[in-house]
Amino acid sequence: MADTESCPTQSMLVISAHAADFVWRAGGAMALYASRGHRVTLVCLSYGERGESARLWRQGLDLEQVKRVRHDEAAAAAAKLGAELHTLDVGDYPIVETPELLDRLVGLYRGVQPSLVLTHTESDPWNTDHALTHHLAMKARIIAQAPGYDPSGEVIGAPPVFLFEPHQTEYCGFQPNVLLDITDVWETKYEAMQCMGGQQHLWEYYTDVGKRRGVQAKRNSGPNLGLVTDARAEAFMRVYPQVADELA
Amino acid sequence: MADTESCPTQSMLVISAHAADFVWRAGGAMALYASRGHRVTLVCLSYGERGESARLWRQGLDLEQVKRVRHDEAAAAAAKLGAELHTLDVGDYPIVETPELLDRLVGLYRGVQPSLVLTHTESDPWNTDHALTHHLAMKARIIAQAPGYDPSGEVIGAPPVFLFEPHQTEYCGFQPNVLLDITDVWETKYEAMQCMGGQQHLWEYYTDVGKRRGVQAKRNSGPNLGLVTDARAEAFMRVYPQVADELA
Amino acid sequence: MADTESCPTQSMLVISAHAADFVWRAGGAMALYASRGHRVTLVCLSYGERGESARLWRQGLDLEQVKRVRHDEAAAAAAKLGAELHTLDVGDYPIVETPELLDRLVGLYRGVQPSLVLTHTESDPWNTDHALTHHLAMKARIIAQAPGYDPSGEVIGAPPVFLFEPHQTEYCGFQPNVLLDITDVWETKYEAMQCMGGQQHLWEYYTDVGKRRGVQAKRNSGPNLGLVTDARAEAFMRVYPQVADELA
Amino acid sequence: MADTESCPTQSMLVISAHAADFVWRAGGAMALYASRGHRVTLVCLSYGERGESARLWRQGLDLEQVKRVRHDEAAAAAAKLGAELHTLDVGDYPIVETPELLDRLVGLYRGVQPSLVLTHTESDPWNTDHALTHHLAMKARIIAQAPGYDPSGEVIGAPPVFLFEPHQTEYCGFQPNVLLDITDVWETKYEAMQCMGGQQHLWEYYTDVGKRRGVQAKRNSGPNLGLVTDARAEAFMRVYPQVADELA
Amino acid sequence: MADTESCPTQSMLVISAHAADFVWRAGGAMALYASRGHRVTLVCLSYGERGESARLWRQGLDLEQVKRVRHDEAAAAAAKLGAELHTLDVGDYPIVETPELLDRLVGLYRGVQPSLVLTHTESDPWNTDHALTHHLAMKARIIAQAPGYDPSGEVIGAPPVFLFEPHQTEYCGFQPNVLLDITDVWETKYEAMQCMGGQQHLWEYYTDVGKRRGVQAKRNSGPNLGLVTDARAEAFMRVYPQVADELA
Amino acid sequence: MADTESCPTQSMLVISAHAADFVWRAGGAMALYASRGHRVTLVCLSYGERGESARLWRQGLDLEQVKRVRHDEAAAAAAKLGAELHTLDVGDYPIVETPELLDRLVGLYRGVQPSLVLTHTESDPWNTDHALTHHLAMKARIIAQAPGYDPSGEVIGAPPVFLFEPHQTEYCGFQPNVLLDITDVWETKYEAMQCMGGQQHLWEYYTDVGKRRGVQAKRNSGPNLGLVTDARAEAFMRVYPQVADELA
Repeated sequence: MADTESCPTQSMLVISAHAADFVWRAGGAMALYASRGHRVTLVCLSYGERGESARLWRQGLDLEQVKRVRHDEAAAAAAKLGAELHTLDVGDYPIVETPELLDRLVGLYRGVQPSLVLTHTESDPWNTDHALTHHLAMKARIIAQAPGYDPSGEVIGAPPVFLFEPHQTEYCGFQPNVLLDITDVWETKYEAMQCMGGQQHLWEYYTDVGKRRGVQAKRNSGPNLGLVTDARAEAFMRVYPQVADELA
Repeated sequence: MADTESCPTQSMLVISAHAADFVWRAGGAMALYASRGHRVTLVCLSYGERGESARLWRQGLDLEQVKRVRHDEAAAAAAKLGAELHTLDVGDYPIVETPELLDRLVGLYRGVQPSLVLTHTESDPWNTDHALTHHLAMKARIIAQAPGYDPSGEVIGAPPVFLFEPHQTEYCGFQPNVLLDITDVWETKYEAMQCMGGQQHLWEYYTDVGKRRGVQAKRNSGPNLGLVTDARAEAFMRVYPQVADELA
Repeated sequence: MADTESCPTQSMLVISAHAADFVWRAGGAMALYASRGHRVTLVCLSYGERGESARLWRQGLDLEQVKRVRHDEAAAAAAKLGAELHTLDVGDYPIVETPELLDRLVGLYRGVQPSLVLTHTESDPWNTDHALTHHLAMKARIIAQAPGYDPSGEVIGAPPVFLFEPHQTEYCGFQPNVLLDITDVWETKYEAMQCMGGQQHLWEYYTDVGKRRGVQAKRNSGPNLGLVTDARAEAFMRVYPQVADELA
Repeated sequence: MADTESCPTQSMLVISAHAADFVWRAGGAMALYASRGHRVTLVCLSYGERGESARLWRQGLDLEQVKRVRHDEAAAAAAKLGAELHTLDVGDYPIVETPELLDRLVGLYRGVQPSLVLTHTESDPWNTDHALTHHLAMKARIIAQAPGYDPSGEVIGAPPVFLFEPHQTEYCGFQPNVLLDITDVWETKYEAMQCMGGQQHLWEYYTDVGKRRGVQAKRNSGPNLGLVTDARAEAFMRVYPQVADELA
Repeated sequence: MADTESCPTQSMLVISAHAADFVWRAGGAMALYASRGHRVTLVCLSYGERGESARLWRQGLDLEQVKRVRHDEAAAAAAKLGAELHTLDVGDYPIVETPELLDRLVGLYRGVQPSLVLTHTESDPWNTDHALTHHLAMKARIIAQAPGYDPSGEVIGAPPVFLFEPHQTEYCGFQPNVLLDITDVWETKYEAMQCMGGQQHLWEYYTDVGKRRGVQAKRNSGPNLGLVTDARAEAFMRVYPQVADELA
Repeated sequence: MADTESCPTQSMLVISAHAADFVWRAGGAMALYASRGHRVTLVCLSYGERGESARLWRQGLDLEQVKRVRHDEAAAAAAKLGAELHTLDVGDYPIVETPELLDRLVGLYRGVQPSLVLTHTESDPWNTDHALTHHLAMKARIIAQAPGYDPSGEVIGAPPVFLFEPHQTEYCGFQPNVLLDITDVWETKYEAMQCMGGQQHLWEYYTDVGKRRGVQAKRNSGPNLGLVTDARAEAFMRVYPQVADELA
């Protein structure tokens, strides 16, 4: 099912609270899908300008300058990964739910017609923006399915939703029930991480995460899946039941 | 990945507490894999002679007679489904864990070299035999992986384990995270159910279960999976993380 | 406790997100209580006009027309079940929490003085309107107990709350800890379901649900409860501890 | 349903790990049922001679003496409560599962034909004997339902099971979903507690528990249940779904 | 670590939904910290004037009068406990989240620079104000950490958060994983409780809670912790992992 | 509380299923306590000879040879860490519960009089030996508290129990609620890991684990705890409530 000849082109929608979340948490999945010719659309609700840009504030930048730097980093990373970037710039810490924001997300769902969706976990006691983003992504998906919402438009189907690995999994209700082999696109992910200039310590941290999930993937797969010894993986949590024609 | 040309032959191992459990709970999966040319091995720990043969006892049969009828029904159903039947005849209500039983199961794992395993849920407040069977199936799988257990033999890999749908899912910790499309083999499953002569009320009950899971599968899949309107499905719960090269 | 002679008249309050939810999920309980001479009050926050009226949109109706059809169906079903209908018409997909809506619900609690409340589950990943309705029903109940809210009015007591069975129980935290025997009013429920003209497929689906819960009720009750073989039941989840003078 | 005129006589089976557990945890329920003319059968697997008789050991008694004192205390308490006492004397710390013990319990189920069962919680990190007793009580109940176990005997129905309140509820998975009003028999329970001569500190402790659960019962019931202000209650956790003909 | 000589002065921030919650639930912890020379800051979002002042309404007071009485009681109790009181007076039943309220809380975090935080549990089906207060306390803490929120101010660190014991622990997801010995300040707590003139029944109720948690503390500690026999304790639930240099 | 002057000498008991588990999972805690002059007793139920010595089997060693190598590695590592080693040599894959094994463990508890206990998690779907070891460690601790078990001996108190970090935390119910700073003894732990000659890949793996838990510890502690930037930590899960005289 992974070879691009036989599969229809897919459309991946990634909904990220802050400008850099997607790189660490889903950069491999994005690069993998882009490398197979699928469409990858990335939505960043905010730049993480207030809460996740400590280095830039320490350099004395003001709010607009911080946002600009963060925008450029996100754009560079998205380009590396092969994704089309949408920045909503709604502000962070906190991200606030508004009818307008919800409508914009519904519109993106309708336009993108995703065949799969990636976003944050339902709860994260270190980051309430992540939890709200989850909530918005789930709600917008459901509204986009409603035939009476903008009845002239085209409703979406029932794309599966996969949740990113959060920083401290055991406190976020994160059950990593899918380990995605991203060995082939690891270099691309690493280059995208390097676009985040001020967070060099995270390059190493998420390399370790990629290795650890790779070891777990290796331990949980039979010989015929053929994972290499030094595999890299990303972990995701499936929200809805998987519909399948085999037990793989 | 479902077409037999490209895939290596798989080996499915089904571990069932009583002689009939497999029919209602996994008959579709078994028929599906057999129909694709895979090997399907079925192990029944007991005949369910004491606890799940009320009709036969009411007819005045004695223990040996009950077991014989149950054996013949199980054999007929296994044949319909395309499975190789192993009956261990360890007695039921309760099934008792012994070193010998565990060894026999380890030996079956080693011989069958399964690429996937199906068995009962970890708990079932209506049926402690089911819970024990789960425990034995899990433990035997782990021992069969140990290089120092019968060192001259061949260890097994890390086959994924899928749990059957129990009678009352919400009380058994059953999260139906895989809905398997069994529409194509539904007739075969139904014929296998009919081998269970004295339980006609269950034919209808599990037909309803198959329909309901089919409706849920339809609701949770995009248009390109192409489920038919009147699909039939079986629900399973995955024990270990799925290792995958796509997010399907 | 069920015979109407000895019991005081009860007051059931049903809070439903969309116009048809109550029929499938609580129609039996409503008919049962009405048949015993109790008061049954039904509140529909919306008509489900945008999200649950696909057939009507496909027929080319506009928003007002869809709402009118849905209103009429709900009114007919409520009449069949013996319930007094209140439609709040706040819109759906999404239902939005406002101080006004909350106040209206508090006012209904104060006016109805319910002895029991029925509403949706706390979470439902397929339907965020259901989760919000749960939240509003719980919050309004608590506010209606506050002596300083409209101090001239009469506070309510502590009516137990029972949650409806959602579509996919295992994903909604739904523990069906009460199985209500609705055999005697099944025909009434079925007639109410038939008022939902465009959803004939659900008539059969929820007939199957009623049968399955009936089988489970039969399996979990001793002989003296006297359930008939082909019983019908509805499942509910109790929110608060049951206060009882026996262990039944 | 609580008045003895209209109800058939019930049969309560209480399965207690150690000789005194039943007094603190279920003495009110036992006295209540006995006072209504129901049959109450009490099974104590052990005397708690090794693990729960510190005072007696400090007095210099030997094992047989400890057991005799504990037996006499249990017998006196059971008599106060109106229960028929069976002491199995299998030893404690640890209670060990054996086929013989299981058979004795199955035999008791068959003989007593319980209409309801009370026992310990599924887990208790302070007391593994309690958890094992739960497991045995559940397993024996299931075996006693099996028509092929001693086919000449009479199988039991499906009596509901209620779990005792453990010492530290939040660590034992104890959800107190039934609060039983034991106000009318409080004095009897208190007298039974006084039979436990060496544990005077527990008389006060469990009086406080009874008051606290009484306050909670009062807070969770409407005015028509008519609990008195200084009510006493015992908390239980229901294992199986309640089958009911009303939502009370 | 508890002796004031060696420890730096700490700053405890207590965030309470209504004016009296803090007394029953955290009065001991507050008195203990104040007695050791630490700073204790108390924030009451509302006076509990509508929902938790039944006695005052029955006396015929109007809203302003109720609030004044409640203010005076809270101020007296805070003084007894050694805490600095901030009353935000945002109204109750319901407390409503607004950007202004959130900002005030962030400002308090920034000003107080807490080294530990105490607040309500994440959920409480009897009191949605408690759950909202939890949510606000958690969110404000995270925003106060953001360098870009009021960049001229001083961000806070990562103070641990401890949740109060709610009224019915088992229904609020409350795992009492810290039992704090408050024996030395029990008299102070009791005097603070007595400031709540109209709730004399709660004085006894929470004395029992203090005793019960004291018994549990005694049972879970080795001899060297040296708890006295009639210890008093308060239970808390830790939100984040404990960072420690020993396993105590 | 960590300085050895003021604290009484403690006694740590580590119960490990296989000979090497303790090194990776608790080596830091052991070295830390030994470095402070506390007593550290290590019990290895088996050598992990059948299930966790793949390399040695591949080298053609027989069972006794494998056990000898594993013994020597464990002894070397224990010596590095400052622990007294007890090897019970009961066999592995599976470890089997017997009355004798349980008695030996109770005897060790009685002799060691631990002030804290470390062992495996309650469940581990990759390793049923770990789960059984947990069960045995918990049960033996409770029996060792019983005054009537070997009444001439000295009962133990109520030492807290801390669970090791398992390989895949999210599938083992592992909530890492204590992060222990082991920076000061990291080199010792690393040297102990190096005693495990054939598992060089795990040296790196568990170095990464130590770094990641160190980062989390840093993120969850205020400035006054003074963790260094490149801290190393081990994660544990506390079984019983912490009894404390402060909220740290």
